[in-house]
Amino acid sequence: MTETPVPPAPPEPPAPLKSHGRLTISASLKPRDLMEPQRVKGAWLAKIITLFPEAFPGTLGLSLTGKALNLGLWGLETIDLRPFGEGRHKNVDDNPAGGGAGMVLRADVVARALDQAAIGTPPDRRRWPVVFLSPRGKPFTQAKAQEWADADGLTLLCGRFEGVDQRVIDAYGIEEVSLGDFVLTGGEIAAQALIDATVRLIPRVLGNHASTEEESFSAGLLEFPQYTRPTDWQGHAIPDVLLSGHHGKIADWRQRMAERLTKERRPDLWRAYCAKAGRDPMEDQEL
Amino acid sequence: MTETPVPPAPPEPPAPLKSHGRLTISASLKPRDLMEPQRVKGAWLAKIITLFPEAFPGTLGLSLTGKALNLGLWGLETIDLRPFGEGRHKNVDDNPAGGGAGMVLRADVVARALDQAAIGTPPDRRRWPVVFLSPRGKPFTQAKAQEWADADGLTLLCGRFEGVDQRVIDAYGIEEVSLGDFVLTGGEIAAQALIDATVRLIPRVLGNHASTEEESFSAGLLEFPQYTRPTDWQGHAIPDVLLSGHHGKIADWRQRMAERLTKERRPDLWRAYCAKAGRDPMEDQEL
Repeated sequence: MTETPVPPAPPEPPAPLKSHGRLTISASLKPRDLMEPQRVKGAWLAKIITLFPEAFPGTLGLSLTGKALNLGLWGLETIDLRPFGEGRHKNVDDNPAGGGAGMVLRADVVARALDQAAIGTPPDRRRWPVVFLSPRGKPFTQAKAQEWADADGLTLLCGRFEGVDQRVIDAYGIEEVSLGDFVLTGGEIAAQALIDATVRLIPRVLGNHASTEEESFSAGLLEFPQYTRPTDWQGHAIPDVLLSGHHGKIADWRQRMAERLTKERRPDLWRAYCAKAGRDPMEDQEL
Repeated sequence: MTETPVPPAPPEPPAPLKSHGRLTISASLKPRDLMEPQRVKGAWLAKIITLFPEAFPGTLGLSLTGKALNLGLWGLETIDLRPFGEGRHKNVDDNPAGGGAGMVLRADVVARALDQAAIGTPPDRRRWPVVFLSPRGKPFTQAKAQEWADADGLTLLCGRFEGVDQRVIDAYGIEEVSLGDFVLTGGEIAAQALIDATVRLIPRVLGNHASTEEESFSAGLLEFPQYTRPTDWQGHAIPDVLLSGHHGKIADWRQRMAERLTKERRPDLWRAYCAKAGRDPMEDQEL
């Protein structure tokens, strides 16, 4: 665990409002390849409060999200929780009140980091959600990713240990969000998953925008099976209809397969889809 | 995107059966700090097939999972998919049969990588699950993490693009698992989440084992709220009962809070919990 004895950085002055395009570009003695990527003015920004700032950007720095990060289409700022800790050892956690295993992040320490993160962000939680990653939260969904992608940015608090003092969650109007019904060592990987799902919905981040529209969940169904060359692989053929060139039949087949898959694997999604489409979830499907 | 022109490594001979403790230790000219951590013989192993091997171990190399990795309590092996590609450019994907956006990973290419990964692993899928990370899969849960932690190891195929040719999924008995109802750019972050959730259930990985037992989901309820020092934070007090020192009352209060939170936030979990406990999910709770 890194321990940084420096005090929190002083508040930054608000960004000048009149510059356009890239944020402040100025002469610098800092070698070019060590410079942070320049974020496009107004681009979506993730601020991450964590005890492991070195975990970022991690996988987000690779592939399409990494290219978009380097192009400044979105930005990433880590806030090390450690310097906000108490005393000479910068303690950030303490034993749970009432006893029990594990350690709980202190309300006062977390509040100081949140105050730092809030500088330069709108107080409206719809424009700038403040999120704590916890298995106690509401499950993250594609709809939530879209909601966040439409915001100006996001502050994510990554937990470790047993959790965070409930008082700071309540007092700061923090949204508790869960990646799923499982427990992780910390919030850092969950943060990367949420940011990946969100950032790819920002215009221009994915080269081929069409692919976000066809995929799982955007229509409330799981995606149909995919095939590609070779047409014969070890005696396994691609379904004839896909090679027919008949667009109407292909679309029908894919719709039926998506419905069948959803019905088999995700009765919950299937019921929701049928309710929306005014269909009977128990109807027989012919395939 | 890295393109490695080297052919896949030749099959490794099966590991010798008679050595105990650490795997093969031999004299080497390789500097010590560049050496892979020595995995304890028989320790749980994750094999990851990916186009981005540089994404690993990533966050898994930090904190408790990282310490356990360095101690050899679990192991991580990446298999770069690229060298298994077709032709001079080592293409791994092609257009979807029947048209549509995105690219599909080829069955033949993926099969070659899976064959490589299978070397030295038991063919029984319960002892060694082979998993494709996809939003079309069954949702990952804590029960699945426990099932995987009890296995000898795991092979994870990380998708990119539109998906993987369905024929290789069917022919190789691959389990499709989803991190949740959202879409990621690729499977790498999802893989890290699944591995983190699994590895922390392996004995000795978490220092304090008790904390896995009290937390969310292991009892079918979300976890009760936590508090720690200071007892008064900006006028917000810790609930009196937690400071009473009365263990029975504290346990009662925590149980009631866990039930109330689960009922409010996760009606699905609450119904499942009540069904198991023979309780009426609509009963009134006094708090």
